Amino acid sequence: MQKAFGHVTAASGFRAAGICCGIKANVRDLALLVSETRAAAAGTFTTNSFCAAPVILSRARLRSGGARAIIVNSGCANAATGDAGMRDAELITRDVARMLSIDRAEVLAASTGRIGRRLPVKKILSGLSTLVGRLSVEGGRDAARAILTTDTCPKEALTRRVIGRREITVGGMAKGAGMIHPMMATMLAFITTDAAITPGCLKELLRESVEKSFNRISVDGDRSTNDSVFVLASGLAGNPVIERGDSKAGRLFSSALDEITATLAEKIVRDGEGASKLIEIVVSGARDRREATRLGFAIANSPLFKTAMYGEEPNWGRILSALGGAGVALRPERVRVVLQGECVFRRGAPAGADERALRTRMGMAHIKVEIVLDRGRAEERILTCDLTPDYVELNKR
Amino acid sequence: MQKAFGHVTAASGFRAAGICCGIKANVRDLALLVSETRAAAAGTFTTNSFCAAPVILSRARLRSGGARAIIVNSGCANAATGDAGMRDAELITRDVARMLSIDRAEVLAASTGRIGRRLPVKKILSGLSTLVGRLSVEGGRDAARAILTTDTCPKEALTRRVIGRREITVGGMAKGAGMIHPMMATMLAFITTDAAITPGCLKELLRESVEKSFNRISVDGDRSTNDSVFVLASGLAGNPVIERGDSKAGRLFSSALDEITATLAEKIVRDGEGASKLIEIVVSGARDRREATRLGFAIANSPLFKTAMYGEEPNWGRILSALGGAGVALRPERVRVVLQGECVFRRGAPAGADERALRTRMGMAHIKVEIVLDRGRAEERILTCDLTPDYVELNKR
Repeated sequence: MQKAFGHVTAASGFRAAGICCGIKANVRDLALLVSETRAAAAGTFTTNSFCAAPVILSRARLRSGGARAIIVNSGCANAATGDAGMRDAELITRDVARMLSIDRAEVLAASTGRIGRRLPVKKILSGLSTLVGRLSVEGGRDAARAILTTDTCPKEALTRRVIGRREITVGGMAKGAGMIHPMMATMLAFITTDAAITPGCLKELLRESVEKSFNRISVDGDRSTNDSVFVLASGLAGNPVIERGDSKAGRLFSSALDEITATLAEKIVRDGEGASKLIEIVVSGARDRREATRLGFAIANSPLFKTAMYGEEPNWGRILSALGGAGVALRPERVRVVLQGECVFRRGAPAGADERALRTRMGMAHIKVEIVLDRGRAEERILTCDLTPDYVELNKR
Repeated sequence: MQKAFGHVTAASGFRAAGICCGIKANVRDLALLVSETRAAAAGTFTTNSFCAAPVILSRARLRSGGARAIIVNSGCANAATGDAGMRDAELITRDVARMLSIDRAEVLAASTGRIGRRLPVKKILSGLSTLVGRLSVEGGRDAARAILTTDTCPKEALTRRVIGRREITVGGMAKGAGMIHPMMATMLAFITTDAAITPGCLKELLRESVEKSFNRISVDGDRSTNDSVFVLASGLAGNPVIERGDSKAGRLFSSALDEITATLAEKIVRDGEGASKLIEIVVSGARDRREATRLGFAIANSPLFKTAMYGEEPNWGRILSALGGAGVALRPERVRVVLQGECVFRRGAPAGADERALRTRMGMAHIKVEIVLDRGRAEERILTCDLTPDYVELNKR
């Protein structure tokens, strides 16, 4: 586990760097990730109507199924910047391509930061030669630092599998966001692997993996202006090319990818803005997964619930209120609510939980809410965090 | 304008009282509103699956179209209390009916406070004789105080019209709630009038009026466990009975009712938990009213937007991000965003607003956000408030 070097460069064939180019004051704000070979590449992006210029650019370039590099900046989202913003992104990726002697169509881009402001293109372009000069296997950690915004620590993940007698590595880095509501804050993730896999299969497995991980935390990867998840596969592990997700090799690779996305998603929640607790909400017995997800997010996104969790109050009425207001016609007598292992509501009435014991357990750093319905067999798990005064202080600027 | 006496007893035929019966410590927590005559009565209630016992009871009793009294307590919601909670509500309304010598089916009920706890029935029953003894026209203000929870002040409204040469009065009182999200916090409103109107017409006009007022603020009257809006019409003004909303008299009465609901709704927002600013969001040029409402609430419910408003930051990117993530496919080049009268975004790019001037105007107590679309002619206005550290402190218990 090459912890010291950063996990995004752990798979064979990847180098990275992260520098301070002056978008922000005195912190790393520009990262570059490069694949030695033309990597099979896939991405999932926000569905926000005002998606950022780098999202438009990367989505278009990924149609080829291949890429060599991703340039990432923090401190400015390059969103709501119109044609000028598109030109800025094109200019930067063109210079990256020129310096790396690759095709500009093989350079992807991602940005995060304030919306509605132009990128400081000059600063970025003048930083590029330093950035390219620092590219190395050891540079992964610097890259993981350069993509952060209000995150308090870099977020990385690494795992390995043996596929066709070859060891393959999957690693990644991510940046988190405000945790209070989906749709609102930018989440970026970059995953690399040396597995050999077709672009089509990679795209399919990424989509499924993101649905189970980043789309089940209370930062909806689908909705901010800049949310992006990228995966690059160099193929250098030398395994037989994975062509189908439902093959044995496909399932192995998929399990590794899922491990990385789940780990990064959980790290994002744990480092939610101002967060003091990780909150896990499991909805079971739902009619279908969509219903389970909707109910879980109704609780996860309730400020009153999140604030009670911050206060370590076993105020489960707020769970019920959020659940009952989610637009699903529930019959109270067929809903069971379990908080920290203690059944608090069943058969339409309080279950007579030991409130003192419960209150003690509310002090734990991990809060678990279980909603047991009697409508079907679907189950979903949503992760979120509490709402604290620090969240407000962090976001008032 | 009988300000000193409270507006809910300003119309002829109503008495009220508010006392401290011990549900909460040393503050008024029990109110009673009584009509001399059998009043035409209507109500709109939450659609929450876990709606409170008093909601179930009042909704059923209002099917008759008439009522004489409403008993209201704060400090305990009597929600998620099952059959026992229903029995508690029935017991209390039965005693109220007995003391007033009226039919128990003519007594309605409302509760607000913590969910999942039984009402302290004994305390309430022992308070009833004092409460009934204090019933008076002057007691309206005490009642308006007794229904409050985290509100910082009583909320009342009063207006008059001349219908068929008779002056009719419409007055009301309300309690507010946490402002951060619809679906979550209890809103109660009680409106009285001496106008003569049929129960059917009253119900129809109330429904329309609530849709325009309480359902357009960021406390969705439809969704918490206890939200209720009641109107009682004593008929004592002696006007010809209003039978149709689209008659001249119906429109006059409707305008008075709308004035009361709009005033109470705005007062609720202004006194939102921890709120320091009133935020008005106007979405125009939408395809239909539903779309306009959805887009307006997407902004109104964005914690990142609300926090920026608290910080007095003209960070309009958060408006765009919320708007773009609302699930309506908008074309950025056809969206105009105006903040405090200054156009900040148009033709897909920043409009070059004077940021210094804008920043000064962000210091005002009233913030106006205008979203101008090019999709149709529908317009909606949503009121909300900012998100402050005080909100979190108020709700952590």
